[in-house]
Amino acid sequence: MKGDLTLIPAVQAAEAIRTGQLTSEAYVKACLERIDASEDTVRAWAWLDKEHALEQAREADRIRRAGYATGALHGVPVGIKDIVDTADMPTQLGSAIFQNRQPDSAARLIERLRDAGAVIMGKTKTTELAYLHPTDTTNPHAPDRTPGGSSSGSAAAVAARHVPLAVGTQTGGSVIRPASFCGTYGFKPTRGVISRSGVYQTSGALDQVGVFANSLEDAALLTEVIGCYDQTDPASFARPRPSMLAGAQAEVPVEPEIAWFDMPFHDRLDPDAAEGLEQVIAALGDRVERFPTAPQLAGLADVHTIIYDVEIAQNIGPLADTHGDRVSPEMRQAIARGRAISADQYEDALAVKASADAFFASHFNDFDAIMAPSASGQALPLSAGQTGDAVYCKIWTLAGLPCLSLPLLVGAEGLPIGVQLIGAVELDDRLMRTAAWMQRFLASGNEEGA
Amino acid sequence: MKGDLTLIPAVQAAEAIRTGQLTSEAYVKACLERIDASEDTVRAWAWLDKEHALEQAREADRIRRAGYATGALHGVPVGIKDIVDTADMPTQLGSAIFQNRQPDSAARLIERLRDAGAVIMGKTKTTELAYLHPTDTTNPHAPDRTPGGSSSGSAAAVAARHVPLAVGTQTGGSVIRPASFCGTYGFKPTRGVISRSGVYQTSGALDQVGVFANSLEDAALLTEVIGCYDQTDPASFARPRPSMLAGAQAEVPVEPEIAWFDMPFHDRLDPDAAEGLEQVIAALGDRVERFPTAPQLAGLADVHTIIYDVEIAQNIGPLADTHGDRVSPEMRQAIARGRAISADQYEDALAVKASADAFFASHFNDFDAIMAPSASGQALPLSAGQTGDAVYCKIWTLAGLPCLSLPLLVGAEGLPIGVQLIGAVELDDRLMRTAAWMQRFLASGNEEGA
Repeated sequence: MKGDLTLIPAVQAAEAIRTGQLTSEAYVKACLERIDASEDTVRAWAWLDKEHALEQAREADRIRRAGYATGALHGVPVGIKDIVDTADMPTQLGSAIFQNRQPDSAARLIERLRDAGAVIMGKTKTTELAYLHPTDTTNPHAPDRTPGGSSSGSAAAVAARHVPLAVGTQTGGSVIRPASFCGTYGFKPTRGVISRSGVYQTSGALDQVGVFANSLEDAALLTEVIGCYDQTDPASFARPRPSMLAGAQAEVPVEPEIAWFDMPFHDRLDPDAAEGLEQVIAALGDRVERFPTAPQLAGLADVHTIIYDVEIAQNIGPLADTHGDRVSPEMRQAIARGRAISADQYEDALAVKASADAFFASHFNDFDAIMAPSASGQALPLSAGQTGDAVYCKIWTLAGLPCLSLPLLVGAEGLPIGVQLIGAVELDDRLMRTAAWMQRFLASGNEEGA
Repeated sequence: MKGDLTLIPAVQAAEAIRTGQLTSEAYVKACLERIDASEDTVRAWAWLDKEHALEQAREADRIRRAGYATGALHGVPVGIKDIVDTADMPTQLGSAIFQNRQPDSAARLIERLRDAGAVIMGKTKTTELAYLHPTDTTNPHAPDRTPGGSSSGSAAAVAARHVPLAVGTQTGGSVIRPASFCGTYGFKPTRGVISRSGVYQTSGALDQVGVFANSLEDAALLTEVIGCYDQTDPASFARPRPSMLAGAQAEVPVEPEIAWFDMPFHDRLDPDAAEGLEQVIAALGDRVERFPTAPQLAGLADVHTIIYDVEIAQNIGPLADTHGDRVSPEMRQAIARGRAISADQYEDALAVKASADAFFASHFNDFDAIMAPSASGQALPLSAGQTGDAVYCKIWTLAGLPCLSLPLLVGAEGLPIGVQLIGAVELDDRLMRTAAWMQRFLASGNEEGA
């Protein structure tokens, strides 16, 4: 039976722990055994102390046995991207500059997890300051491939079943792409659903928090637990958040309508990814409306890059100036690009971003979701020295829309390829509902075809 | 029909607003009309802007109509004791020193309310710095009587049906006593359930947040919404909080066992209160175990007073030194008493408090709840110039136990008298369940007797 417990999804594990059918200690132990078995290859963890994790698990079990309240993630282990501050673990940001950095207080999302009874398993590897320079993490499906980035360790840890759940962040495509490469679910909810207080800032306009899981419901539950209004995060909104889990478990009232945009950058897709996406479009039939190249839309990817470069220069430039030798060339280039962009260009980009927000706020009257690639295709080889192209995610991140990567496709070499669904702002539950429907629809179609 | 909507409890109103059977605007308007009708006499509000409240209500309705998420208190108005910081309303602490004070940020519990979609109706009057010097608020059941204090406005506003829900605080008996005097439910959950960040501190060791409502379920729901772990409040705990509402709605697995202690200070009870409590004890029969005078227990009330006086001197003393003319004699006396207490006495008191915490942590193995008076009896006449005696609450507040006042008795002049139930630490849901059982049991007993 060794290791089998890690097949239990988080939603079911939390329920079993609450009702006494499973102990947190057994569940966490099973995860630690999986880590023992594959961490030498996967290298997902920046910081992990087994005894620290087990002690939390035993405490969760003690609380339950004593008849005290249990939470929505009681006793369930969660991995945390190492740019999220934890008060009882170091937070080292994937940068030599921050080696052994120990924050005094925890991120708001960590408070939420502890309130829900979760076990904070450890810190997962992030690319340097959540930007491009890779970690040594490998893809659990192919050790010679990248897991994607920047949330490399979180995606790999969930794919390797080191933990059922992990938290990541996305400024470009740092949740959706690694989820696609690693064959997990990746979900970046509407901008402002999850507080960024205590999360390292690379771009105030673009940084967003997301999650990884091995089921849609698990991704929904984790998002629901960590989401909250936080007045200290300017992007956080003082309105109720949708119940993500209820969305994932809901039936659609009518068959959803899905939009697909033929973007100019789709010519960068790998042939197997392009073909797989066409098959999904075909299987969905007239439930998908296909739109020709939308240049204004495609141009938003460049707007994203301008804002990101400028804000990286603002946020990380001073650090690079004093610690130049410990900053990657990728980062130094971004800072140089950002510094070369005029204030006018930056203001223009922010104005376009605002108009894109407004465009998407009205666009979704006609559609339940936009479908798009999650990434260029299968995970790139490690020898490429990079974590992949974020272009398929930039527009949606820019507009703050909820984005979900579903592990629906298999590439030419048998590796996973995700399909991205994008929802309307603050209607994350509808996106979850649409995704659940699409999974069921495609699965039943495949059965019919078999 | 005017005003009738205010009879809808918060749990039912929230459900009706979510499902479109009631608008927040109509509900809030009904409350505002009740305020118009009786505020001249009751004087519950320190700050209230009708248009500000209605705008929040209309926004809640817009959110619902647009299909966005609704929260657990969506569109339901809540009154906030004026020692709780609000970022869009002044927070004046019932003190001339803080006239027109406008905090920059809101208390954590206000964040939670906004996250749940609640309408922040306004600020309710507090005695001076939540201590003894009364407000001009009157008891909605008798305009020549005190509503109790220090959460005078919150209790009166709920009793007058100006709002279905209000937040208060308790350092001695400032939730339980006004609830008893005003005939509402009052609930102060386990110390640390609700964050005090952004709540004016009078005593770090004793200050706790509580709620007022006109039904047990409403009190449970509000507590559940505002409770959360907050690392910035040293009393807050990083464990799941019980579901208060589920507790209030649960059936007891077996008939509860209730303890009653004959305290020496019970000789201060009014005859009608003493008699009413004896009737409740008799009606509960062998479900109540009665214990003789427990001197160590009774002595805890004095320990409470020592800690409170010392911490008032620490927290408010410097303010009184510079604004002496704007500080009440009651406060100056407390500060003088606190300053006269030696550090040794204070340390001893804290040590006794810690041992009391430990005592009660083990005591509740044998009982589901302790029953006790909420206050001395009916509300005191305004001419007494005080808000009543907190002695019946001090021990339980000191030990951080969850305390509930149930409006079960009627005094000699037809005014309400509460009965207090005290639960085990962090088992607030069990206390709610026991209280719901007790209400049903006593109601059915009365029917049989009729």
